Amino acid sequence: MTANTGVPARDRTRRLAYLVPGPMHRTELGAAELQRRQDKLRDWAFPGTEVEVRAVDRGPASIESMYEEYLSIPAMAELLVATEADGFDAAIVGCFGDPGLDGLREISDMPVVGPASASIALATTLGHRFSFVTVTASIVPALRRLAWEAGASDALASVRYIETSVLDVNKDHGAALGRMREQGRLAVDLDGADVLVLGCMSMGFLDVAEQLTEELGVPVINPSRAGLHAAEATVAQGLTHSRRAYLTPPKIAAGAKLGELFVGGGGRP
Amino acid sequence: MTANTGVPARDRTRRLAYLVPGPMHRTELGAAELQRRQDKLRDWAFPGTEVEVRAVDRGPASIESMYEEYLSIPAMAELLVATEADGFDAAIVGCFGDPGLDGLREISDMPVVGPASASIALATTLGHRFSFVTVTASIVPALRRLAWEAGASDALASVRYIETSVLDVNKDHGAALGRMREQGRLAVDLDGADVLVLGCMSMGFLDVAEQLTEELGVPVINPSRAGLHAAEATVAQGLTHSRRAYLTPPKIAAGAKLGELFVGGGGRP
Amino acid sequence: MTANTGVPARDRTRRLAYLVPGPMHRTELGAAELQRRQDKLRDWAFPGTEVEVRAVDRGPASIESMYEEYLSIPAMAELLVATEADGFDAAIVGCFGDPGLDGLREISDMPVVGPASASIALATTLGHRFSFVTVTASIVPALRRLAWEAGASDALASVRYIETSVLDVNKDHGAALGRMREQGRLAVDLDGADVLVLGCMSMGFLDVAEQLTEELGVPVINPSRAGLHAAEATVAQGLTHSRRAYLTPPKIAAGAKLGELFVGGGGRP
Amino acid sequence: MTANTGVPARDRTRRLAYLVPGPMHRTELGAAELQRRQDKLRDWAFPGTEVEVRAVDRGPASIESMYEEYLSIPAMAELLVATEADGFDAAIVGCFGDPGLDGLREISDMPVVGPASASIALATTLGHRFSFVTVTASIVPALRRLAWEAGASDALASVRYIETSVLDVNKDHGAALGRMREQGRLAVDLDGADVLVLGCMSMGFLDVAEQLTEELGVPVINPSRAGLHAAEATVAQGLTHSRRAYLTPPKIAAGAKLGELFVGGGGRP
Amino acid sequence: MTANTGVPARDRTRRLAYLVPGPMHRTELGAAELQRRQDKLRDWAFPGTEVEVRAVDRGPASIESMYEEYLSIPAMAELLVATEADGFDAAIVGCFGDPGLDGLREISDMPVVGPASASIALATTLGHRFSFVTVTASIVPALRRLAWEAGASDALASVRYIETSVLDVNKDHGAALGRMREQGRLAVDLDGADVLVLGCMSMGFLDVAEQLTEELGVPVINPSRAGLHAAEATVAQGLTHSRRAYLTPPKIAAGAKLGELFVGGGGRP
Amino acid sequence: MTANTGVPARDRTRRLAYLVPGPMHRTELGAAELQRRQDKLRDWAFPGTEVEVRAVDRGPASIESMYEEYLSIPAMAELLVATEADGFDAAIVGCFGDPGLDGLREISDMPVVGPASASIALATTLGHRFSFVTVTASIVPALRRLAWEAGASDALASVRYIETSVLDVNKDHGAALGRMREQGRLAVDLDGADVLVLGCMSMGFLDVAEQLTEELGVPVINPSRAGLHAAEATVAQGLTHSRRAYLTPPKIAAGAKLGELFVGGGGRP
Repeated sequence: MTANTGVPARDRTRRLAYLVPGPMHRTELGAAELQRRQDKLRDWAFPGTEVEVRAVDRGPASIESMYEEYLSIPAMAELLVATEADGFDAAIVGCFGDPGLDGLREISDMPVVGPASASIALATTLGHRFSFVTVTASIVPALRRLAWEAGASDALASVRYIETSVLDVNKDHGAALGRMREQGRLAVDLDGADVLVLGCMSMGFLDVAEQLTEELGVPVINPSRAGLHAAEATVAQGLTHSRRAYLTPPKIAAGAKLGELFVGGGGRP
Repeated sequence: MTANTGVPARDRTRRLAYLVPGPMHRTELGAAELQRRQDKLRDWAFPGTEVEVRAVDRGPASIESMYEEYLSIPAMAELLVATEADGFDAAIVGCFGDPGLDGLREISDMPVVGPASASIALATTLGHRFSFVTVTASIVPALRRLAWEAGASDALASVRYIETSVLDVNKDHGAALGRMREQGRLAVDLDGADVLVLGCMSMGFLDVAEQLTEELGVPVINPSRAGLHAAEATVAQGLTHSRRAYLTPPKIAAGAKLGELFVGGGGRP
Repeated sequence: MTANTGVPARDRTRRLAYLVPGPMHRTELGAAELQRRQDKLRDWAFPGTEVEVRAVDRGPASIESMYEEYLSIPAMAELLVATEADGFDAAIVGCFGDPGLDGLREISDMPVVGPASASIALATTLGHRFSFVTVTASIVPALRRLAWEAGASDALASVRYIETSVLDVNKDHGAALGRMREQGRLAVDLDGADVLVLGCMSMGFLDVAEQLTEELGVPVINPSRAGLHAAEATVAQGLTHSRRAYLTPPKIAAGAKLGELFVGGGGRP
Repeated sequence: MTANTGVPARDRTRRLAYLVPGPMHRTELGAAELQRRQDKLRDWAFPGTEVEVRAVDRGPASIESMYEEYLSIPAMAELLVATEADGFDAAIVGCFGDPGLDGLREISDMPVVGPASASIALATTLGHRFSFVTVTASIVPALRRLAWEAGASDALASVRYIETSVLDVNKDHGAALGRMREQGRLAVDLDGADVLVLGCMSMGFLDVAEQLTEELGVPVINPSRAGLHAAEATVAQGLTHSRRAYLTPPKIAAGAKLGELFVGGGGRP
Repeated sequence: MTANTGVPARDRTRRLAYLVPGPMHRTELGAAELQRRQDKLRDWAFPGTEVEVRAVDRGPASIESMYEEYLSIPAMAELLVATEADGFDAAIVGCFGDPGLDGLREISDMPVVGPASASIALATTLGHRFSFVTVTASIVPALRRLAWEAGASDALASVRYIETSVLDVNKDHGAALGRMREQGRLAVDLDGADVLVLGCMSMGFLDVAEQLTEELGVPVINPSRAGLHAAEATVAQGLTHSRRAYLTPPKIAAGAKLGELFVGGGGRP
Repeated sequence: MTANTGVPARDRTRRLAYLVPGPMHRTELGAAELQRRQDKLRDWAFPGTEVEVRAVDRGPASIESMYEEYLSIPAMAELLVATEADGFDAAIVGCFGDPGLDGLREISDMPVVGPASASIALATTLGHRFSFVTVTASIVPALRRLAWEAGASDALASVRYIETSVLDVNKDHGAALGRMREQGRLAVDLDGADVLVLGCMSMGFLDVAEQLTEELGVPVINPSRAGLHAAEATVAQGLTHSRRAYLTPPKIAAGAKLGELFVGGGGRP
């Protein structure tokens, strides 16, 4: 962890890791997309914040179902532990589903931030009713559950999706933007939403939320930025997630190493 | 799947698999405990039901945290797919946390039954307010979430735990029973519970719920039996979980094989 | 009660009574319909389960309002007491409104199962949002209340009805099925239901839920079967409703006979 | 109904019936208690209001369970219909459980007022959290349900009871008052109630709510008065319960007489 | 306060003040409208009730936003204190938004009645789901919040508005009535409301609720009358709002005068 | 507003105003306390953020009741409008009660941030259940309402208070800290809180949250910092509160000046 003791808060620096739960560099998007996302995050960050993007070396190509969320968690846990050991101040989960957030928090003392959790919290402070605009129908129940976990079910106006895969969002930014605008407008006009949340990190890295905010006349939240600022603010305040809410696994508390919790398979799920 | 067409419901048979999400046979409990559990399940089942206990070949030794739940899911998914291919009629997840239930249902057409889900449903039909009696404090938030997912938060009187690891429950049945009785009584007397749910499958296989029901004067639900009967009833009625609620992952729907969703790591999380 | 002590669960038998809260045999449906329902129940039951259908000797011709529900309860209470005295193991209330369920449980130690309660519990384990398909608009508020009592209000997508009386459902099965299919489809397509519950026992005894499940692509729950299997499972597990939730009336607890609670009218409401 | 047309609201009169759902005159309390209650109601009423107390000729001696509530409804329905035919403007159900309120409203066009419903509505306008103080533990679940039906579950601080039968409340007013004061004080000091509701009409007719309000420093609601004033206000405003919420039973709507809904038993439940 | 001690409830009188939170007499509606409203209230009141309408000398011309609600409160507080000093028995806040109700109750021992609070309480006793019909879109969120504060969010079917300013409601009664009928009908037919609440006091003083009740076939609640009768009933029962829920400001409790709480500005917000 | 167009987000600056809703400089705390708070805010802010503390010239000495909240709003509205005209990018309401937040947002296009709203949002992202630790009992209901407005009622474990006035918190920091630690510990140990929120800005400016976080083992949220970072993040993302949720008052939308909404009193409440 960055040594901040005695330094006035204003002059403290923060090292944040943005952890991508899929080996994006091994897909057709390639390492370039990871680099592009890192550039965006660094551009968005407050001065004094360093951001590094790290991806797991194995995992789902993209996450469009709960099944793929679950597939991603074991490698993420390893990457998280390594990241904390490297002295980072906080980690951001690089998927809007916040996959494994509670489990990851159980094994980390540094803040682990979920972008959905951060975006929903922000949405509820800006208006009365929000809608998600996301990629595919398959992820709709997961998004409803995220709203529900955040205590925001009553504030959820609707979940709308653009019927476009995560990959296609990344391949044709213009087409994705057009469909997001269209579904966002329907959420406002038909469903009564007064705030919109983009329900996919790839949508966030399109960096179109400010433009959509202007066009649609309601706040449009970019989860990539909401997660980033939540991490910055949590670190700046000297906070982390409650270890009374996310308890250390008993075997670890009793002295076992993380790897010892797993039996068989060469220690690999 | 068992060929039942044209057979009167009464005469149909059912093949159920009880899938243990940890390699219990590789722990000190050994294969004998798997055998003991299979015997119990066969004893409890209705005539016409065949039950087979299968364990994953790798996974957490036991599950006492969300982190360990997540570790267990990839191997469980593989075992589930193999089980469905073997012609079973339904699978029961052999852990009270219902780990990965939504993800597992996304990749299965046969019913996948969660014992927590089944036990909570049963509890709400027998009384007004129920308490869980479980193993360790570390699993309390996960149990609160299970109640919440089932829409039963308002009916949850309390979560009590016996501060005993899963392993120790299995090693000293008598001590575990004593503590379960003690915490169960407190749940009834102090927390206002009128139904109790044993919140751990190892507690269920102690087979003491009937005894505790008598001693405590309130229904005590054994999740191992509740899950079994839920599976039997679902199959008997020709039902499965809603594929409109648990959608097939889009890549699978588009023709990919399950293994193709995973990149790197030799296809292993 | 059947003497099961010492018998392995698998070999125990169960005697269930299905209690019809109206004198169906005195209506134009006649005793034949009671016989038909008994045949259905016996066909659906697991081996080891004996089912007997019993109807009250007086009561509403059919139940399509709360007023008729209330009319049915005093005679049902008498029949329930007699049934328990005859050694049955459980009773199923033969009306989807679960009329008088809490009052009946106050005066019975054997399980009294409500089919709505059982069906809603099953629905919430199979999907996220369910709709009722019932007979007439007059019963819609009662069904909303049943969902609410079960803690399932948030999961209730809609209540749809086929504008057909209970009698007409029984007189023209084909017409009823057509309307059920139509309203069920609307519930799925317009209201977002991913599970359907048939909200009337006469609908249940049409025995078309399996067919509708196939046609509509979502689980369709037959309350007659859901109630039956709930009763079987409750008895099999040695459970009954919580007597701490449904207390014995104080006068009875103090020694009065059931009949002594009633003053005037020759002891008849 | 009183002919009020063209008369300024201030000069209109109202005829209210207070319907006792048990044959109190046939119990040891006798007709004198009915007379005493009528005197109280007349003393409490606004000028222009006439109140008549009527009791059923058969029913439970007193109501201390849901079972007894259900026993009381058929005779109450008959009395209600006769009362409406006699030209009354509204009826008040003379039991705090509001037994059969929805069913009674289905068969009446004049307002039928439930004292629990009226008391809870009043309580929620005077403070944030209320407790019931009632007679026996056996009625606690029914009172929780009443709060829940009124949408006031979140405002219910507790249900406290004095472990005294309805009969004993009437036989020893002083002892009852002492216990009510004691439990009321505990509700305020321990449970955080800032309003109290007396949960039994016999408690109401002790006429001690004003005294307790002074002694305990929080509003104490007398359901007998709350129900009376609710009936007066509803009639004065030309309102009745919504017939879209409480629909006429279909058979009645189709032309059947009330008695024709019942088959067998000489038309008597 | 009226000296009622020792007087039978029936013969007690009540002095109520209806406090208008805007200087209506200084607007184009003039003092005549205040007089007209006083006449209406006196016509609607029960015998024994005296009603006086008082308006603040400064404040918003009308209230169509939360901002205008807040502007009105300081002068209302002064008027309330003066009214209590003048010996009134209760005050009714003359705006449907119940502006400042909690703050006003903190500084008053006599009942302060909010017409929205009273109307919602009445609505929930007459049906299952209600809609507001109000003036402008700008006040919709405030009305949703009022329902929510009353614990009635689940019972709120919709908020409909007639797109007509408060002033225009008063200037053209016929046009306003036409639009109220239209929106009320849509609330019943499309939104499923079975009770309607007029969400504006100027709508209330049109005195058309009885007519709309007849035309629309559901209860239509006039908040001006609902508030009046709530005040009458509260006073008649010797009740006031709970001073444990609405505590005296600590500085006042410690002896400060009300005016001393304000610093600067000549003691005027 | 700061001209940021074309400037990379990282290099943008933000001008924030912290608006104190009481004339603290006219109380015994004096201008020095305002200066001290400005120093703290500047120390806490991220680089690129300028913070200026401004206080109203008239208002309550401190806010310990809803009545005082309401007294503060008119002058705050004036100050807010002047602040927006001066080119600030956002305003923070300098009182934990978020007094008048919805009304202030109706008349402002720049973000208006409420520290309670921001703190609750942060709390729900760090744990499962939080408690407020605040100054006096008189403000407890207001804090419950804030949690409720944020949709966080179910997550609110308790509201604890130190029975110390706002003035005394400022006069004896050590005594206040001791009581906060004591009540915070009780909230964690007895009420089950896993996150604490300091429910008063004067508590926030004690700058002890980091110390308490360490001592109590759970995150302790300083509302002064939480509000500051929420304002920074909202501005950085180019967002403001939804003008569809907080609509412009119709008279303003129609062209009136803010001052014209007020009649009489020289335009001053």
